Amino acid sequence: MQSLENKILLEGQVLSDEILKVDSFLNHQVDPFLMREIGEEFARRFKDEAITKVLTIESSGIAPATMAALQLGVPLVFARKKKSLTMADQYYKAEVFSFTKRETTLIAVGKPFLNADDHVLIIDDFLANGQAAEGLIDVVQQAGAHVVGIGIVIEKAFQDGGTRLRQSGFRVESLARIASLQDGAISFVKKEKV
Amino acid sequence: MQSLENKILLEGQVLSDEILKVDSFLNHQVDPFLMREIGEEFARRFKDEAITKVLTIESSGIAPATMAALQLGVPLVFARKKKSLTMADQYYKAEVFSFTKRETTLIAVGKPFLNADDHVLIIDDFLANGQAAEGLIDVVQQAGAHVVGIGIVIEKAFQDGGTRLRQSGFRVESLARIASLQDGAISFVKKEKV
Repeated sequence: MQSLENKILLEGQVLSDEILKVDSFLNHQVDPFLMREIGEEFARRFKDEAITKVLTIESSGIAPATMAALQLGVPLVFARKKKSLTMADQYYKAEVFSFTKRETTLIAVGKPFLNADDHVLIIDDFLANGQAAEGLIDVVQQAGAHVVGIGIVIEKAFQDGGTRLRQSGFRVESLARIASLQDGAISFVKKEKV
Repeated sequence: MQSLENKILLEGQVLSDEILKVDSFLNHQVDPFLMREIGEEFARRFKDEAITKVLTIESSGIAPATMAALQLGVPLVFARKKKSLTMADQYYKAEVFSFTKRETTLIAVGKPFLNADDHVLIIDDFLANGQAAEGLIDVVQQAGAHVVGIGIVIEKAFQDGGTRLRQSGFRVESLARIASLQDGAISFVKKEKV
């Protein structure tokens, strides 16, 4: 998505070979016009999939996922990150390990909000090692629901999450795919023909 | 806002005299059409205030605040809840005590995202004791910026946050004002003339 790549080049800060900071428009400050455009693009790519629900994880996924849900005309559910879980039997839950934070988080979705007949589009702001996406897939599958695909705003294609998810048969649509952050320079994966 | 009150009556669950659960459309599952309507209503009420930024706090404020920011044509900033803060001098920060969770959380906004010439609309999903709103006001004032007003989706008017904020001179616009949750019944504050 050209406007997203432009925004990343203009405002993204490369903190290391692995870390791209985009908190001026996605993770902390949020550009609502770009979020709307992102939502429209996800809806366009997945429009033939009879999606019934969008699922993301708090917090940075919520803005783009709300816009995608609006465009698709379906509810959004955001998984909660929990330290511990009271009334654990009321939730589908999974453990997600964060490589950046070096900690495991419990994510939880209330059972009423995912059903066996749901066709779920998972959306997240970043895809790196794929732990968050895999946790969300796990939660969807516990409900007996179907994962239609995974929509990612920014994929760090030099980390292995995207490859692993695609090899497992999931359709992953990333609106920007970073090939490298080496030497402080942002380069994108060259477009394949659509 | 009539459609919001209807939704609360239809789907809200009264868990106690003080706790209303609305996780089917606001806090966990999110109704994106209602969020858009809420965003439009906030924008309508504050349209003459030359707002430059919308500020909320993760996570449940993000969906309605994104929609309000879109309608107002300004960026959204969501304050981060932190356990601890590395590089603390890069943030405006405040401590927020939660009566429901009985714990104090640190909230933080990166200094680049609030400036002295900002006119800030604070938005949150709930207003009860007002601690979160007061923390956000504190953060805005640390930046030397101006709080234009506070937009709340659901105010528990039987708790004192709204009264205290209004007595301090802040304009508080709540789209639904709950008068009471006693005996499992939801009643709203009667409309004043606009």
